[in-house]
Amino acid sequence: MSFSFELQTEDTQSAARAGVIHTPHGDIPTPVFAPVGTQATVKTLTPTDLHDLQATLILSNTYHLYLRPGADLVADFGGLHQFMQWDGPILTDSGGFQVFSLKGLRKVDEEGVTFQSHLDGSKHRFTPEGVIAIQEKLGADIIMAFDECPPPDDYDYNVQALNRTHRWAERCQAAQSRPDQALYGIVQGGIFADLRAQSAEFLSQLDFPGYGIGGLSVGETKAQMHEMLEVLHPILPRHKPRYLMGVGSPEDLFECVARGVDQFDCVLPTRIARNGAVFTRHGRVSLRNARFKADHAPIEAGCQCYTCRTFSRAYLRHLLIAKEILALRLTTLHNLHFMLETMRQIRHAIVEGSFTTFKQEFLNDYQPVTEERRGK
Amino acid sequence: MSFSFELQTEDTQSAARAGVIHTPHGDIPTPVFAPVGTQATVKTLTPTDLHDLQATLILSNTYHLYLRPGADLVADFGGLHQFMQWDGPILTDSGGFQVFSLKGLRKVDEEGVTFQSHLDGSKHRFTPEGVIAIQEKLGADIIMAFDECPPPDDYDYNVQALNRTHRWAERCQAAQSRPDQALYGIVQGGIFADLRAQSAEFLSQLDFPGYGIGGLSVGETKAQMHEMLEVLHPILPRHKPRYLMGVGSPEDLFECVARGVDQFDCVLPTRIARNGAVFTRHGRVSLRNARFKADHAPIEAGCQCYTCRTFSRAYLRHLLIAKEILALRLTTLHNLHFMLETMRQIRHAIVEGSFTTFKQEFLNDYQPVTEERRGK
Repeated sequence: MSFSFELQTEDTQSAARAGVIHTPHGDIPTPVFAPVGTQATVKTLTPTDLHDLQATLILSNTYHLYLRPGADLVADFGGLHQFMQWDGPILTDSGGFQVFSLKGLRKVDEEGVTFQSHLDGSKHRFTPEGVIAIQEKLGADIIMAFDECPPPDDYDYNVQALNRTHRWAERCQAAQSRPDQALYGIVQGGIFADLRAQSAEFLSQLDFPGYGIGGLSVGETKAQMHEMLEVLHPILPRHKPRYLMGVGSPEDLFECVARGVDQFDCVLPTRIARNGAVFTRHGRVSLRNARFKADHAPIEAGCQCYTCRTFSRAYLRHLLIAKEILALRLTTLHNLHFMLETMRQIRHAIVEGSFTTFKQEFLNDYQPVTEERRGK
Repeated sequence: MSFSFELQTEDTQSAARAGVIHTPHGDIPTPVFAPVGTQATVKTLTPTDLHDLQATLILSNTYHLYLRPGADLVADFGGLHQFMQWDGPILTDSGGFQVFSLKGLRKVDEEGVTFQSHLDGSKHRFTPEGVIAIQEKLGADIIMAFDECPPPDDYDYNVQALNRTHRWAERCQAAQSRPDQALYGIVQGGIFADLRAQSAEFLSQLDFPGYGIGGLSVGETKAQMHEMLEVLHPILPRHKPRYLMGVGSPEDLFECVARGVDQFDCVLPTRIARNGAVFTRHGRVSLRNARFKADHAPIEAGCQCYTCRTFSRAYLRHLLIAKEILALRLTTLHNLHFMLETMRQIRHAIVEGSFTTFKQEFLNDYQPVTEERRGK
């Protein structure tokens, strides 16, 4: 097996863990944040940019790649690594989250999901077996089981969906034929502790090489998310990586690492960057703000990203106001550097035994976006 | 004087010349093609990208920078070099071409031009003195006299405009106060040999350090453009650089270098790149074409640009079809590399004495876009 997880340090004051995921395309020190490259590109960036950022894992979306350019085309190139020319580790999701987001355009049955493409309305069908076949064509290092993503606060729906998700997890496992890909199971159960526990116990029996935690970036509160992670921590296998899907913000990294999460992905840093919002140690800032019009300072003093080493806030604001494409790349570089560098510091602190102190210092300075704006 | 032009080689079979323009921000081997950075950025590219492309001169637009972010703001940063963090040579145009393009929104008188901003309709006035003051604030290495750009085929209008352009050239020269910028005069005269000759003679007397050739990318035929260059070649001072403004296509580089031009700029390579069109040795190609859907080859075999060294046509087509921003940067890199590398090869051929042969070889292979599509 070319995939393994090495647990190196467990924090004594929290559930934080440091380790390494070994993959066929290189090692991933954990905890790790994965930039999102939905359509086989982390928007605005080249693979060289990602290397310069020291990204160790990127995510790409099965649903999007299946529709365009198509899994067979990617397979014809030898897989996603060759197609997009990124030689580091890649994770593909299962498309479950995307097809369940197509409200009104999809129909679930025991066998799978029938849905209409958001691009052209054409009809398609995903089954656990089909989704594994697609992901095997895409050839990522980590692939995900096909799961049903119900609204997090509907208990009866969650019970039903959870059972189906468990049957689908078994079918995914049975369908897997490539030994060089790690298939993660996905824990569901909404905001219900009993369902989450049940899901973690069931999937643990199936002995997946890693576990996704799904359905926790879809409308529940941060407190509910934290509670679910606390339920899962003692149940999920200690020596397997835990991947909190679709999360999160800078503050999420700290709070969720503290609750035992090893792996994250989120569109937030890249999406807000394209809107001109950038992370600083004190919180998010919109570079479009008129107060930066003549500001000679970089986004953040001391930041080692290319953008901060090179350009003033005034220049970046000019590019944004003038609708220059370069602006989007420069803010993306900064935000990803911020997330990746913060995660490297988190890992260092775990190894050094100073994670709780570092977490407190960071969160004292950092003003998060208020609860009601989450997920927008 | 920190600016000078060193004529190194004159071709024996054509009017082609090789030389070096020395500027405060570095040397520019000529003939040279300057990428256009209208709003203080060559669209999609960082200064690092431009260095990697070995660009030796870029152009920025006075009209655009005057409106946004404003010349005073740029001056507050120490000029355009510092503002955009490009430490190589920069040329700014005078805004003449832009304001005369604002048909219906501008009014010319002897003193200058009153016009309305294309951004918000606000009223502004450019005079020769004002335009020099703006360009001194922007701080480019090469600045341009304020000129009137009439329709190329209206003789009476051209006579009138030419006289005014000459008076404005004298006023620009008188207004210049910075010794570290080279002010070029601009030859006008439409498609009329007598007016072009008259303009070249008049401006030669004023002893500018370089000469722009204006009004030749605005609707006349290629044959007319070539004829005007042939008229100017023996009249313009031999030891001053000649800059054909707003030209051109790959075939233009050859035809106009052969007629004594040292300096070019054009939005063509960057503009068509953002539409998915790329240069090859055989002509322009649209990467959106379905025939590239599964094409493993680079845009051009043997091309040393980052895009061709890294990606397949199929991947580039995927990015274009999926409206990914990265596509625009990758096609821009290729097209600028094509122009700059072609110009380096032209210069090498002039120095080696093989320019005419190289020109014939290139133009035999290269299928230009037909006449009626020019300038679109």
